[in-house]
Amino acid sequence: MPDVSRRQLANAIRFLSMDAVQAANSGHPGMPMGMADIAEVLWNDYMKHNPANPEWADRDRFVVSNGHGSMLQYSLLHLTGYELPMEELKHFRQWGSRTPGHPENGVTPGVETTTGPLGQGIANGVGMAIAEKELANEFNRDGHTIVDHYTYVFAGDGCLMEGISHEACSLAGTLGLGKLILFYDDNGISIDGELEDWFTDDTLKRFEGYEWQTMAIDGHNPDAVIKAIEAAKAEPNKPTLIACKTTIGYGSPNKAGSEETHGAALGEDEVAVTRQALGWQWEPFHVPDEIYQAWDTRQAGQAAEEAWQARLEAYRRDYPELAAEFERRMAGRLPEDFTETMNGIISEFREAGASDATRKHSGKMLNTIVERVPEVLGGSADLAPSNNTKWKDAPIITPSRETRGTHGRYLHYGVREFGMAAMMNGFCLHRGYRPYGGTFLIFSDYMRNGLRLSALMHQPVIYVFTHDSIGLGEDGPTHQPIEQLPSLRAIPNLTVYRPADGVETAVGWRLALEAGDGPVALVLTRQKTGALEHTDETVAGAARGAYVLSEAEGGDPEGILIASGSEVDLALAAQKQLAEQGKRVRVVSMPSWELFEAQDEGYRLSVLPDGLAKRVAVEAAESFGWERYVGREGRAIGIHRFGESAPGDTVMEKFGFVPETLVEAYNELD
Amino acid sequence: MPDVSRRQLANAIRFLSMDAVQAANSGHPGMPMGMADIAEVLWNDYMKHNPANPEWADRDRFVVSNGHGSMLQYSLLHLTGYELPMEELKHFRQWGSRTPGHPENGVTPGVETTTGPLGQGIANGVGMAIAEKELANEFNRDGHTIVDHYTYVFAGDGCLMEGISHEACSLAGTLGLGKLILFYDDNGISIDGELEDWFTDDTLKRFEGYEWQTMAIDGHNPDAVIKAIEAAKAEPNKPTLIACKTTIGYGSPNKAGSEETHGAALGEDEVAVTRQALGWQWEPFHVPDEIYQAWDTRQAGQAAEEAWQARLEAYRRDYPELAAEFERRMAGRLPEDFTETMNGIISEFREAGASDATRKHSGKMLNTIVERVPEVLGGSADLAPSNNTKWKDAPIITPSRETRGTHGRYLHYGVREFGMAAMMNGFCLHRGYRPYGGTFLIFSDYMRNGLRLSALMHQPVIYVFTHDSIGLGEDGPTHQPIEQLPSLRAIPNLTVYRPADGVETAVGWRLALEAGDGPVALVLTRQKTGALEHTDETVAGAARGAYVLSEAEGGDPEGILIASGSEVDLALAAQKQLAEQGKRVRVVSMPSWELFEAQDEGYRLSVLPDGLAKRVAVEAAESFGWERYVGREGRAIGIHRFGESAPGDTVMEKFGFVPETLVEAYNELD
Repeated sequence: MPDVSRRQLANAIRFLSMDAVQAANSGHPGMPMGMADIAEVLWNDYMKHNPANPEWADRDRFVVSNGHGSMLQYSLLHLTGYELPMEELKHFRQWGSRTPGHPENGVTPGVETTTGPLGQGIANGVGMAIAEKELANEFNRDGHTIVDHYTYVFAGDGCLMEGISHEACSLAGTLGLGKLILFYDDNGISIDGELEDWFTDDTLKRFEGYEWQTMAIDGHNPDAVIKAIEAAKAEPNKPTLIACKTTIGYGSPNKAGSEETHGAALGEDEVAVTRQALGWQWEPFHVPDEIYQAWDTRQAGQAAEEAWQARLEAYRRDYPELAAEFERRMAGRLPEDFTETMNGIISEFREAGASDATRKHSGKMLNTIVERVPEVLGGSADLAPSNNTKWKDAPIITPSRETRGTHGRYLHYGVREFGMAAMMNGFCLHRGYRPYGGTFLIFSDYMRNGLRLSALMHQPVIYVFTHDSIGLGEDGPTHQPIEQLPSLRAIPNLTVYRPADGVETAVGWRLALEAGDGPVALVLTRQKTGALEHTDETVAGAARGAYVLSEAEGGDPEGILIASGSEVDLALAAQKQLAEQGKRVRVVSMPSWELFEAQDEGYRLSVLPDGLAKRVAVEAAESFGWERYVGREGRAIGIHRFGESAPGDTVMEKFGFVPETLVEAYNELD
Repeated sequence: MPDVSRRQLANAIRFLSMDAVQAANSGHPGMPMGMADIAEVLWNDYMKHNPANPEWADRDRFVVSNGHGSMLQYSLLHLTGYELPMEELKHFRQWGSRTPGHPENGVTPGVETTTGPLGQGIANGVGMAIAEKELANEFNRDGHTIVDHYTYVFAGDGCLMEGISHEACSLAGTLGLGKLILFYDDNGISIDGELEDWFTDDTLKRFEGYEWQTMAIDGHNPDAVIKAIEAAKAEPNKPTLIACKTTIGYGSPNKAGSEETHGAALGEDEVAVTRQALGWQWEPFHVPDEIYQAWDTRQAGQAAEEAWQARLEAYRRDYPELAAEFERRMAGRLPEDFTETMNGIISEFREAGASDATRKHSGKMLNTIVERVPEVLGGSADLAPSNNTKWKDAPIITPSRETRGTHGRYLHYGVREFGMAAMMNGFCLHRGYRPYGGTFLIFSDYMRNGLRLSALMHQPVIYVFTHDSIGLGEDGPTHQPIEQLPSLRAIPNLTVYRPADGVETAVGWRLALEAGDGPVALVLTRQKTGALEHTDETVAGAARGAYVLSEAEGGDPEGILIASGSEVDLALAAQKQLAEQGKRVRVVSMPSWELFEAQDEGYRLSVLPDGLAKRVAVEAAESFGWERYVGREGRAIGIHRFGESAPGDTVMEKFGFVPETLVEAYNELD
């Protein structure tokens, strides 16, 4: 390493950040200036990574949970040699750049996860650390360590105020994630100013309550950072919190230590005096060669990955099947016999023709799926017996110190829905596992922004939402979803699938596992639904989002009843009553709007012909949005109020979910 | 008190709970059986309440955050003499009963808040305790203490796993809420079973980190409960956590201590052997007279309230104006000159005709509102400078020990959106304050279930959501709302108001403060919008949710452009371009769907005549749901993907939010 002081190396981060924010006249210089010294030590002395290959399986994971400090991460990636040229830094926060306002996975090489909504990065990191632990348990063998990396997370006061930090860190402590190291930017400032009126936690004590190793250091003292990381690594059975006292906007003579540095450019003048104060004599966006050289990690990174590749080769020689499986899993490819397996299961459901709750069909499927798709990693936010997400003899993920040599595949997330969503994002981002997580549909509310980030990051997380309507009964309005279905459908890049019976449930699971580009929400009943009469066409149709389940008898249809999930039975009963009145009505089962809309126009019009304007849709949910299919002329039967506590059948009936309502509505369209 | 043992008094709760759950064959007996001894001591020895008047202003507040234990609360209310006869207990969880599955405010007398979604009750309690503290600061005078009560909260492991418990309890510690007492049902069990694999927090240490007083006791030992409550009351400057070791399903010979007692009836046989084991010889739903007498609180409660009424009388003599103000506030009536005041402000905005961001209009309004409406209690989840929610010289709510004699009206919630929503519910439920809370619209995701509970409980909480579209610019897709507007509109009993300019913003605030029956979300821009040309009619129209802002020139309109918020300017520009092409187009500004749909049909048809099917709606959000107004023939211009990081104008333009898009869409309808 050339003879450049650590302080100057850190100052490179500070000035790239200040200059980029100044150029954009938008952004957050305070955090990068405050955490630069920590980042410098971590990246120059500890991080295992290869700038040429951000996808290297055994790299350390680095997460900036306080994502507004994105320029810190972009500076690190640029300086160490990732494909992020200076031009990109100059275009920070501009259209088409690879340097968006907050770090985005998939946009910038080396950005492990999308952060900005506070606290979630910590939970992503917990998910990554669990994935590392279980993959190591699953694949490492004596003398062969192919999975062995750390997860480093940066977080600020905001992250630690958010509730999700509690959910994730509490579970991380229980699980004893010794390779998770959290750097807390303890700068005493948030947007509203000094924290004394709203955040006075003794955070170390709080984390000791979670069974973490904790320490407090001066975040501007590299030796202290080194000592802390060494101590963190020396503790294999507990995650470590390193609370780093820092000064936000460190180096700015007039603004350091103030919330003014948090979310706005410092101003040309202040940047100039900061240059003087820190002895940084170079122009904006200029980094002298010796500083580049000191930061450059390309050679060391390449060497590190090559050493690992050699270990992988040795592993492949001794365990060829395991090695192939490891590579398949890290590449995110499904098992070769996947489609065959799933179609077999679907056929079994079709033959069985059983009437049951779709949550139970789902539970039944899982028992087969987990045997054939070993990357499936299940879990539930403390509702396993209710949402049928736990298969027989599921191996539970427990603390490291107890499970070396075995590996867990089922995580009891506890009553932590939001944490579950963000941890599942972490599993997916890490690669190696395909997570699903269960809770009641109503509690999708608790995890909503985590689910949104699955969609934004294109991560194929599977959400299992049971107890999907007022049909759940006695638990009452606090537990009965009303607006949740339309609210989920409104999220871009999320596929919502609400099956009507066992076959549709099986198809939904196949689609969910096949999905590679975004999350899928399976929406399941608590109560029984009828078994539909299927043909090859209807099974194929179920995978297209909507299909003609039952054609009008005795001639061309004159109208359509559209339904999803438990209300498909109602539509079929209404069709029969209408037939008795001489009305020829088609029934369309529509488990998924998103899949249906992805079909070609020909198919769509074959299911919902333009000319058939007499349409009644029915769903035991807020009908918000159904006008898309029924138009201003048709009728959407739904719910526009909150639920009631009573047995499910009673509530359904009192809310009008009986065939007669459909018949009446249809006839009113005449 | 007749000579009945405390244990038998507690057993009355146990058997009422077991019997009711058994009769319903649905419900949660485990918690009431476990917490009965704690509840018995609290209610018989400490609770200040009057069963004849559940609305008595100075009653102690009692919150069951682990709301599945509703039968505990119903038993207490029944036994102490509330209007909740045995018939209601026999109809637990049945249609039309006052004993729904989870406690519901407004349904059962004495139920202070609706709980069930875990953790929120704690935050409701924190809100109530802050309301008590600030009302006491505001209204009590030397020798006159008219506000002086405690807030008691029951909570379980689930509540303490939820992130919101962190948000609320951290802030409660910072604020030193000495009159908040939290009983933690430390029974080591959640639905999935024994907690050791998913929840091993040292909760006392965690709460010490929050600066709470903490203690651990045997929850089945009444003397220990008494000692703990005494110690809690002796500490005026810290909230107290009493961790009570209990046995879930206490008393059941074969199921006590197991998750089996949590959420299902014990079964006839087990209830029978539990009767034997606890020496409870009576039939289901029979409580012997001596036990009723020992529980009966009607006389003592009446006397307590009368003593307080006498104090209020004395206060009224010495401070007649303050007393009148106190009563007005607790009754939830607006100041008499409210409408006049607000109309004055609206006129000022109309005269000023200023072009500005609607968040800034809102901030400007607040400075006037808070002077004229003293019950307004503001706050923000750490975004005060950005969402313009903090008025000049707002008195900040700080720890009790520092503010006696003054009172705060602005709460820095910290980065705790969900906690903020649930605390605001607590403020409203307590009465005396009208809370509003600000954050970015995107973070409505974080608080969604709290907002839902505002709506379910009909509480007039005001949500101030700024940065309401991709127009916020550089912060990028993590911060740019897309699906949030339709998702909020889908919530029953929530009014969403997205104003287009200063006048509409002022009208929105008037409506929000007038709302008595549910929450209102004000949805505001980060960026400037134009000042609309208003008439008396348009101002009146803004209060009806939608109105003809600009009529087609030169004859009857042949089509309609509908827009909300910042896109109204676009519609006006498109109207002009279309007029140049000879097209007569009406522009409708639609700040609120809910208000518009509450208008009579005549008004609705006057704004959107049935015959005018040529309709284009535009909103910089997911257009999900707009088919309601444009039908299958019209066109809704919106967004079906996530946003991008770039300056706001650029993003708007790149996403097609320019007048030409509207013109083209309109012309395509030809």
